[in-house]
Amino acid sequence: MNFSSKLLEDAVHEFSKLPGVGQKTALRLVLHLLNKEQEEVMHFSNTLIKLKQQIKHCTVCNNISDHTICSICAAPKRDKELICVVEDTRDVMAIENTNQFFGVYHVLGGLISPMDGIGPSDLFIDGLVERAAKGSVKEIILALSATMEGDTTLFYLHKRLKDFQIPISTIARGIAFGGELEYADEVTLGRSIITRVPYENSILK
Amino acid sequence: MNFSSKLLEDAVHEFSKLPGVGQKTALRLVLHLLNKEQEEVMHFSNTLIKLKQQIKHCTVCNNISDHTICSICAAPKRDKELICVVEDTRDVMAIENTNQFFGVYHVLGGLISPMDGIGPSDLFIDGLVERAAKGSVKEIILALSATMEGDTTLFYLHKRLKDFQIPISTIARGIAFGGELEYADEVTLGRSIITRVPYENSILK
Repeated sequence: MNFSSKLLEDAVHEFSKLPGVGQKTALRLVLHLLNKEQEEVMHFSNTLIKLKQQIKHCTVCNNISDHTICSICAAPKRDKELICVVEDTRDVMAIENTNQFFGVYHVLGGLISPMDGIGPSDLFIDGLVERAAKGSVKEIILALSATMEGDTTLFYLHKRLKDFQIPISTIARGIAFGGELEYADEVTLGRSIITRVPYENSILK
Repeated sequence: MNFSSKLLEDAVHEFSKLPGVGQKTALRLVLHLLNKEQEEVMHFSNTLIKLKQQIKHCTVCNNISDHTICSICAAPKRDKELICVVEDTRDVMAIENTNQFFGVYHVLGGLISPMDGIGPSDLFIDGLVERAAKGSVKEIILALSATMEGDTTLFYLHKRLKDFQIPISTIARGIAFGGELEYADEVTLGRSIITRVPYENSILK
């Protein structure tokens, strides 16, 4: 690109580092901001700086939080004995949106991925083991992505947690609700036949 | 979305104001930045603030510039008597990328659009008339989008400029190079038959 301005080029360069943002999109975003009032651009930038400087991780569950204990861990209504283990904040938000879970979370901060050089020590796993060791946990739900990394992490967590005699469960995998059989991928379809549930135990009962 | 953090929510809100960025994309971008070092986030924000505070508009052509005269208007090699009128900086960059134009530009800062409440007085048209009035311009090329707004602006500019006895041209419209006839839209195809050029004048000669 032929930039007539170094200032513009620098800003476009910064935006194009964001995931999924190419040079053309970056230029469009920067020119959009440039058309805004100075006040608005300052507010945009300062919100980001404030986020980075003031954000904390909950000391209990490692979720992103404004305080040292996050709003979920601090809520008296939530069941502290039921822990749902997830990869990151986005998963917490996704599960919260379902309104089906009333326990607390444990945010690993990633998944084990030897390909990307992420090992167990890079994740907040010791914190989970500590919580399990305290003895007041009645179930740990492992809600991880159904990917190679998710399965590796699942396997590792099970190994670390199995001696505490706490029931460990994983979220159900199978054909998505509303999904048509003919469009399901072979692995999912094959596994949902192998892991079939008695009709009395199914959600349809 | 259920945000566990007000700081996070504020930042996502700011990003989702950008064109083409929804809440999910905004969250992804903000979490990406949150994973970066504080230094990098500061640099990102400060680049934007610096751009907004220091950017200028060239006093000759109105293009975005780091100085009061932009690098194109200041270049001794560029033909100052040939002016190409465009909507915005992106069009300047697109034309510069072709390496086919060696004159200077005039950036209107938009197109006349009564639907959006943009009239001629909102654009840098008086500046163009002043340049034309100086008498040293040998041709004005109107390189505007082939849209309703572009055509309206074209018509208005022609009315304002026609008394100066300067040749006014518009960029050629027709079937795009590499375009197959059967996929061309009807209007373009119809007009390119009406505005057909003698073989001797065509680029194929």
